[in-house]
Amino acid sequence: MSGGNTASVQINVRYAETDQMGVVYYGNYFTWFEIGRSAFFRSLGHSYEKLEEQGLLLPVVEAYCRYLSPARYEEQITITTRLERLTAARLVFAYTIHRGEILLASGRTTQCFVGKDSGRPVNLKKHYPGYWELLQSLIPK
Amino acid sequence: MSGGNTASVQINVRYAETDQMGVVYYGNYFTWFEIGRSAFFRSLGHSYEKLEEQGLLLPVVEAYCRYLSPARYEEQITITTRLERLTAARLVFAYTIHRGEILLASGRTTQCFVGKDSGRPVNLKKHYPGYWELLQSLIPK
Amino acid sequence: MSGGNTASVQINVRYAETDQMGVVYYGNYFTWFEIGRSAFFRSLGHSYEKLEEQGLLLPVVEAYCRYLSPARYEEQITITTRLERLTAARLVFAYTIHRGEILLASGRTTQCFVGKDSGRPVNLKKHYPGYWELLQSLIPK
Amino acid sequence: MSGGNTASVQINVRYAETDQMGVVYYGNYFTWFEIGRSAFFRSLGHSYEKLEEQGLLLPVVEAYCRYLSPARYEEQITITTRLERLTAARLVFAYTIHRGEILLASGRTTQCFVGKDSGRPVNLKKHYPGYWELLQSLIPK
Repeated sequence: MSGGNTASVQINVRYAETDQMGVVYYGNYFTWFEIGRSAFFRSLGHSYEKLEEQGLLLPVVEAYCRYLSPARYEEQITITTRLERLTAARLVFAYTIHRGEILLASGRTTQCFVGKDSGRPVNLKKHYPGYWELLQSLIPK
Repeated sequence: MSGGNTASVQINVRYAETDQMGVVYYGNYFTWFEIGRSAFFRSLGHSYEKLEEQGLLLPVVEAYCRYLSPARYEEQITITTRLERLTAARLVFAYTIHRGEILLASGRTTQCFVGKDSGRPVNLKKHYPGYWELLQSLIPK
Repeated sequence: MSGGNTASVQINVRYAETDQMGVVYYGNYFTWFEIGRSAFFRSLGHSYEKLEEQGLLLPVVEAYCRYLSPARYEEQITITTRLERLTAARLVFAYTIHRGEILLASGRTTQCFVGKDSGRPVNLKKHYPGYWELLQSLIPK
Repeated sequence: MSGGNTASVQINVRYAETDQMGVVYYGNYFTWFEIGRSAFFRSLGHSYEKLEEQGLLLPVVEAYCRYLSPARYEEQITITTRLERLTAARLVFAYTIHRGEILLASGRTTQCFVGKDSGRPVNLKKHYPGYWELLQSLIPK
């Protein structure tokens, strides 16, 4: 289910993720998006954890989610993450949340590249050329 | 700081809200938006809790946040919520997150009206006319 | 790794679970314990979700955790849950959190049996005899 | 309500803090305890944030909570934190959670003193004598 510019991962909905409406709290979908991003980086063989160790942070600068159908406790959920766009300054991921064939939610986040020590923007192409090439090669032409 | 179609509320950033980047986790801003909505409804004298007791749910169908500057542990944060748009089927809130004069983030959520028992869309104007009038009166012409 | 009165489940540490100390926030271990309980009930073929549908709630009345070594982002963690004690009114689970062979934390929760509609204590032996027999059979003599 | 070895702080229960049982999720009480600790340190004029900046971390090594009555969305909750015990290696806080006069929960955490850079135990009496004196003076003889 993973490959190219897409990675999928499955989770079981936690009781802690529900709210008194009896469904998953809307804010928790952004945690699921982050799980999707982590799975995406792992699938490249470059975990996000390693990026941070190399001094590169990817703070989120924009996040969006559209909710179509609620998720409930114990359901098995598939998070699919696709690298949608890449520039030297930022990248955009698109996400879908499915239960089986049913699309529950979709969303998008934009991350920028920031130096861990400087706290300032980093040009990925210039400062991490190997990583830039790898990500660049995943974007469909 | 509250009045008309706007309500403000202050919080101190919790340690639990930070992540290993040393700043507030991006998903937690959506919890702050919800705190803003709760304060908005309280300022009307109609808490969201009472709405649910009257059988009306307001699930989020869309959520967006733009992050400008990070929030940190113990900072005092002001959440300002403004009712931006209202139809018989849904409402839109706009939010700002400030530390003092500095804008840290802004966002928007869309909620629809759903019957607690039916789980189906509810026409606010028809089924909760008093509440419709109240909210309608807050929208600037 | 599961069987008898014990069930194990593995998770990857989420970025959202860390705090600014760079390790998993102490309160999140209680969410992990809950994941352990859910896995325990699933391993019996009686998910906790089904119990709630049958009108039985198991609110936590006591919770304890001892922290030995921190867990970090992306680590693979094993949660092991053991049914330790059972009476007609409550049950006690014991938990361990491991990374490989290393014990990171251990804990214990006590749950009581409460009727979903009544909100009052339920005698499991009397009102859910089949379930009582099943759990009872798991406790080592 | 604060003074001596005790500090109190009030919060409104967040929607995000509830679960599908319709009450506050048990793990969130540990976040409330942390809010209590933060308020305690602020009341001393030495915020926990400043301690971390001075190189001192206080990781939790033990946590316990007893739940007596549930907390619900929008309720106003008082968190009271009392410094119960202090040694050169660790301190113990006791907490109560009230809604008005009603005790909802009580608990206790033990923290140890750790150097931020070394990651190793720190003798508070020896390395932070001023802070040791201050805390020591709060413990009833």
